[in-house]
Amino acid sequence: MTTAAAAASVVAASVAATAEGGGGDGAAVRFGIVGCAEIARKVSRAIRMAPNASIAAVGSRSGEKSRRFLAENDLDPAAVAAYGSYEEVLDDPKVDAVYMPLPTSLHLPWAVAAADKGKHLLLEKPTALCAADLDKILAACAAAGVQFMDTTMWIHHPRTAEMRRLLSDPALFGDLRSVSSIFTFRADDDFLKNDIRVKPDLDALGALGDVGWYCARAALWAAGYGLPATAVAHRGLVTNDAGVILSFGASLQWEDGKMATLHGSFLSHLTMELSVTGTRGTLRLSDFIIPFAEGGASFAFSSEAAFTELVTGWRSKPGERVVDAELPQEALMVAEFSRLVGGIKGGSLKPERKWPEISRKTQLVLDAVKASIDKGFLPAEVGV
Amino acid sequence: MTTAAAAASVVAASVAATAEGGGGDGAAVRFGIVGCAEIARKVSRAIRMAPNASIAAVGSRSGEKSRRFLAENDLDPAAVAAYGSYEEVLDDPKVDAVYMPLPTSLHLPWAVAAADKGKHLLLEKPTALCAADLDKILAACAAAGVQFMDTTMWIHHPRTAEMRRLLSDPALFGDLRSVSSIFTFRADDDFLKNDIRVKPDLDALGALGDVGWYCARAALWAAGYGLPATAVAHRGLVTNDAGVILSFGASLQWEDGKMATLHGSFLSHLTMELSVTGTRGTLRLSDFIIPFAEGGASFAFSSEAAFTELVTGWRSKPGERVVDAELPQEALMVAEFSRLVGGIKGGSLKPERKWPEISRKTQLVLDAVKASIDKGFLPAEVGV
Repeated sequence: MTTAAAAASVVAASVAATAEGGGGDGAAVRFGIVGCAEIARKVSRAIRMAPNASIAAVGSRSGEKSRRFLAENDLDPAAVAAYGSYEEVLDDPKVDAVYMPLPTSLHLPWAVAAADKGKHLLLEKPTALCAADLDKILAACAAAGVQFMDTTMWIHHPRTAEMRRLLSDPALFGDLRSVSSIFTFRADDDFLKNDIRVKPDLDALGALGDVGWYCARAALWAAGYGLPATAVAHRGLVTNDAGVILSFGASLQWEDGKMATLHGSFLSHLTMELSVTGTRGTLRLSDFIIPFAEGGASFAFSSEAAFTELVTGWRSKPGERVVDAELPQEALMVAEFSRLVGGIKGGSLKPERKWPEISRKTQLVLDAVKASIDKGFLPAEVGV
Repeated sequence: MTTAAAAASVVAASVAATAEGGGGDGAAVRFGIVGCAEIARKVSRAIRMAPNASIAAVGSRSGEKSRRFLAENDLDPAAVAAYGSYEEVLDDPKVDAVYMPLPTSLHLPWAVAAADKGKHLLLEKPTALCAADLDKILAACAAAGVQFMDTTMWIHHPRTAEMRRLLSDPALFGDLRSVSSIFTFRADDDFLKNDIRVKPDLDALGALGDVGWYCARAALWAAGYGLPATAVAHRGLVTNDAGVILSFGASLQWEDGKMATLHGSFLSHLTMELSVTGTRGTLRLSDFIIPFAEGGASFAFSSEAAFTELVTGWRSKPGERVVDAELPQEALMVAEFSRLVGGIKGGSLKPERKWPEISRKTQLVLDAVKASIDKGFLPAEVGV
């Protein structure tokens, strides 16, 4: 279809520009991976798929673990250093940028250290335990003149750009009225006992920081990144014995009457729903964070839908639109980050402020949901 | 597919049983329509489509209006009486059962009057302004030994039975964890000014009683009609100058940790989402109240969904299941109601208590949402 073809050519053009460095220099951005978490496997593949990025080093708490990561992910030990500490990665002059999938509580010290050493920063979500911590990271990045980006991959899929185009069309979508965003998966017993995301000292936000990050980001994205005024957590919160959130719900309210509901859980079957309703249109998809498959991804969109005369059916079904992606969304994320880093290195670009700004807004929403929980489910203002 | 074929044969068998009266007598149930609201056109068609029902009389506040209704809906004036009052319908001995699409505030007096005159009652939703009013109607029906049913049509679609079958399967769906239910449509200026659903003296519950009825029923249906313990209305409520609800959101909490969110509005684009998540499965559809088309209707269901090893996609997409219906859901509703009425008339059946019970539970949930609104969005207990 035309939409898919158009989107594909946009991606092709963008990747071509990326390959040239965007800012005029052609050298690939060299990544150091700080921490060998499971998610680092996916991102290391993405770095290798991106036309303007490469892996220079991997660091974890033991050299053995780093060497195993290289072996398991087909990384050439002659080209990729395997360090037994995070510090060595940050000290390696061959490393331009750091991808950091550490437990959230370690983000603040290590992200600041990376920025202080002049490394551009691709930081796993949640970016910090609270916006105040993230602000320290962002201040360090700003002081060092390095690019900051979080790893919300779906934002980089061409499907997301196509959905944004429709939501921004007053004739097709009108004004945004409400968002419903759900991301749940059913963790097994091992996860609920041992995963870092249920440990108060490692990832204190639990499901709110993990799956909730995407729900909050989706609401902000739909709202054009306008911040809601208040958040109210829903009763029915589930925490583990250590007080870490395993399941939550929340509502967000904007000054102009827009609203959103978020639901994230480690205790329910894998579900990934985004439904966005305006005055004239509705967008819906069931795989907004991780598309069902690489390549093409789809969503449903309807505009000015109506019932038949006797309300015995609809005049039309919501249209299913398919958008192709030449590269997986995580590779497009790496490519965009590397395009910016390349431009900054080459002197043609300044750090793009959009990325830290939307990370910060996401974190502010999580802060407010957490504050509402702490207040016994009363409304909490979203900070600015 | 097998599911559709199986469902179709279930419907065929059910309709055949219905045509025989179910309770052993073969005469069609003769309906009187009390009130010529727009929705009466759809239901009069349904009565004529049902194999065990016919229309005997139509009554409105003027004979002229009733005669026009007959003409506009191809009803034969030789076979269908056109009365200039509601009372004449209730007094007509040829009328076995009454379909009553009056404004909600008129339900209490007229539904009680109908029951008192021995008429079986198919009552439009919301069934009453509050559960206490409905209880008076149900008491009158019980005293008269007549069948009560509300007009929640989607409950009668074979798709709903097939969805129920899946939700009840512990291996496929597990335990219910959460429901998200949305029904919005964008009313035009004329509706927002003149429709009975925005008038405090006619339909004081506004969008909560109208679209909200379906959202509340869907949550109850998913929960096997177990009542939630509490309801909390969401901030961001919109009312008109007279205080009638135009848009609302709410959360429901069950004692065992299940939760639901409801959203209904007259101010947003036509949207009809139901998403039901268990520990092992997820059900989703975008036309749960009014299927996109008559005939086949579909829904998405996934069970034990999982990501690929590197979380770059899903192992499978949620399966789309199609269920055929030989008759439109509203005709199946009339057929089921008429089967019960026929059986009661023939002496082989007692009034089926399931139908008044689920109406009452739906009304109790609406009461609790209203109570939460009145308390300033604090939790309200759901009555029993």
